[in-house]
Amino acid sequence: MAVYTEVTDEALRAFLADYPLGALRAFRGIAEGVENSNYALKTEAGDFILTLYERRVDPRELPWFLALMEHLAARGIDCPLPVKARDGQALRSLAGRPAAICTFLPGVWPRRVRPEHCAPLGAALARLHLAGADFDEVRPNGLGPASWGPLLERCRPGGDAVQPGLVAELDAALAAIRAAWPAEGVLPTGQIHADLFPDNVFFLDAEGGPRVSGLIDFYFACTDLLAYDIAVCLNAWCFEPDGSYNVTKAHALLSAYQKLRPLSAAERAALPVLCRGAAIRFLLTRLYDWTATPAGALVTRKDPLEYLRKLRFFAHATGAASLGA
Amino acid sequence: MAVYTEVTDEALRAFLADYPLGALRAFRGIAEGVENSNYALKTEAGDFILTLYERRVDPRELPWFLALMEHLAARGIDCPLPVKARDGQALRSLAGRPAAICTFLPGVWPRRVRPEHCAPLGAALARLHLAGADFDEVRPNGLGPASWGPLLERCRPGGDAVQPGLVAELDAALAAIRAAWPAEGVLPTGQIHADLFPDNVFFLDAEGGPRVSGLIDFYFACTDLLAYDIAVCLNAWCFEPDGSYNVTKAHALLSAYQKLRPLSAAERAALPVLCRGAAIRFLLTRLYDWTATPAGALVTRKDPLEYLRKLRFFAHATGAASLGA
Repeated sequence: MAVYTEVTDEALRAFLADYPLGALRAFRGIAEGVENSNYALKTEAGDFILTLYERRVDPRELPWFLALMEHLAARGIDCPLPVKARDGQALRSLAGRPAAICTFLPGVWPRRVRPEHCAPLGAALARLHLAGADFDEVRPNGLGPASWGPLLERCRPGGDAVQPGLVAELDAALAAIRAAWPAEGVLPTGQIHADLFPDNVFFLDAEGGPRVSGLIDFYFACTDLLAYDIAVCLNAWCFEPDGSYNVTKAHALLSAYQKLRPLSAAERAALPVLCRGAAIRFLLTRLYDWTATPAGALVTRKDPLEYLRKLRFFAHATGAASLGA
Repeated sequence: MAVYTEVTDEALRAFLADYPLGALRAFRGIAEGVENSNYALKTEAGDFILTLYERRVDPRELPWFLALMEHLAARGIDCPLPVKARDGQALRSLAGRPAAICTFLPGVWPRRVRPEHCAPLGAALARLHLAGADFDEVRPNGLGPASWGPLLERCRPGGDAVQPGLVAELDAALAAIRAAWPAEGVLPTGQIHADLFPDNVFFLDAEGGPRVSGLIDFYFACTDLLAYDIAVCLNAWCFEPDGSYNVTKAHALLSAYQKLRPLSAAERAALPVLCRGAAIRFLLTRLYDWTATPAGALVTRKDPLEYLRKLRFFAHATGAASLGA
């Protein structure tokens, strides 16, 4: 369910009149994406995506996201390029919501990740980090380590109903992660996507296998440890449905990444704890959604325990090599 | 929520290899439609819609629907044209579901119906009825008058929880509708859409106002009274959000329809009871879904009481003229 706000055709036409995109040809709600309302928009000028930003996104942060996408697109990253209205502004308003039109990216996100996806993913992630290096505006990670304690507090009342003993296990895990987390200044930082799950990466077939044709959904992007973005991807791309860690996929991802941006020794050493951190971050937000979402709400609640299994796996990782680095 | 079945990219590629549509360019789930899984599909040959038929649709009936769409499209109706695979078949299988690719129709469905939509709608409905006249295969209306009694029985245990006294009111309404329903053979029959709600009709702007660019979702189509299809549209298009009947819209719809296919005196006389029938049909299926759907299910439950208000309105209609005819 990804259409929360309905747009009347009059409002849409008035909105589009401010853009140099020609006449409206088609307009369909897109089922993907969980945070915002997304529409496939076709005009005389081609295909676009119209996004209406819903309540979870702070409107004051939107200019940063749009500027980052514009910066990355200008450096050849296949990410959505915000389209400016005639007044030069990309961020506008529609149906009472902040709204933006971005370019449409071709491709298909992989419903089932294969090893062949992971090398192009790793290369795309490295290119993203390199392209962001001269984007200077900082956006702190609102879901970084400092947020995990407060998130766990909010899950404390309902957490054990999801699985007995869960809250105590997370208390211990979070203490261990904090103790091992790299001190400030030790690892390189930069602009990270922070949510590069398979449904945010489009592929097209090419000679020699799939190639990345698009990276989307930059609305968790922030300024944080570059290697933490890799840790998110290892969590999101390298586990099989049975919970096993696929080191072939991880190795393909990490090798391709390092061809473009080699990891420092400190980054390699930190990889296991960064993976634990990424696991607990997704576990906690899912757990919070799980316990806070009324059972009847029209939101797909994702299983938090999937990330408990990942957290436990990474807690036993003996080093970066065991993770495929 | 209109993606129930996820399709892996390997399965999609294998499926597409059987079609003369060139390479896959994009594939996105569509949020609209409630019965089936719909994807926007872009290939080298253009834009298409891929539909996976879910459990509510009887796979044995799919050939009838696809043949009707092909028949109508060949006669110039802007409806989806099923695309045949290399083996000549339009109905195939994907991800364990019956599946078909149809042409993409441009346009936007009206989130808020204006009077200017209703004349082109009426004309499109008349053209649909005329174009179906030489489609000979009969499909009985599975949600016609004979189904309403059994449907009401299934709603009997839970109905009064939706509104006290509701079941008794529906018992009386159904008896009155049955008593007044036209005898077989009195009104002209043919192929009807039977579900022509605003989200199934696309419009584009043209000189002089909106024009219909597409009629979609023929999976309730059947062989039934032509004027009943008008009654469905009067229910679906001619009430304001406050529950009032907009006779200007109804008059525009009926006048434009009759320019192409004038109603007989018997059809005009039957219009009020046909409208009551259409109201109770949507009331009963919504009521059944409301009482049968678990509160946590990912299905938007539509308010059945909206149609109780319409049913009451039509019960007091004094004749076709009072409805705008």
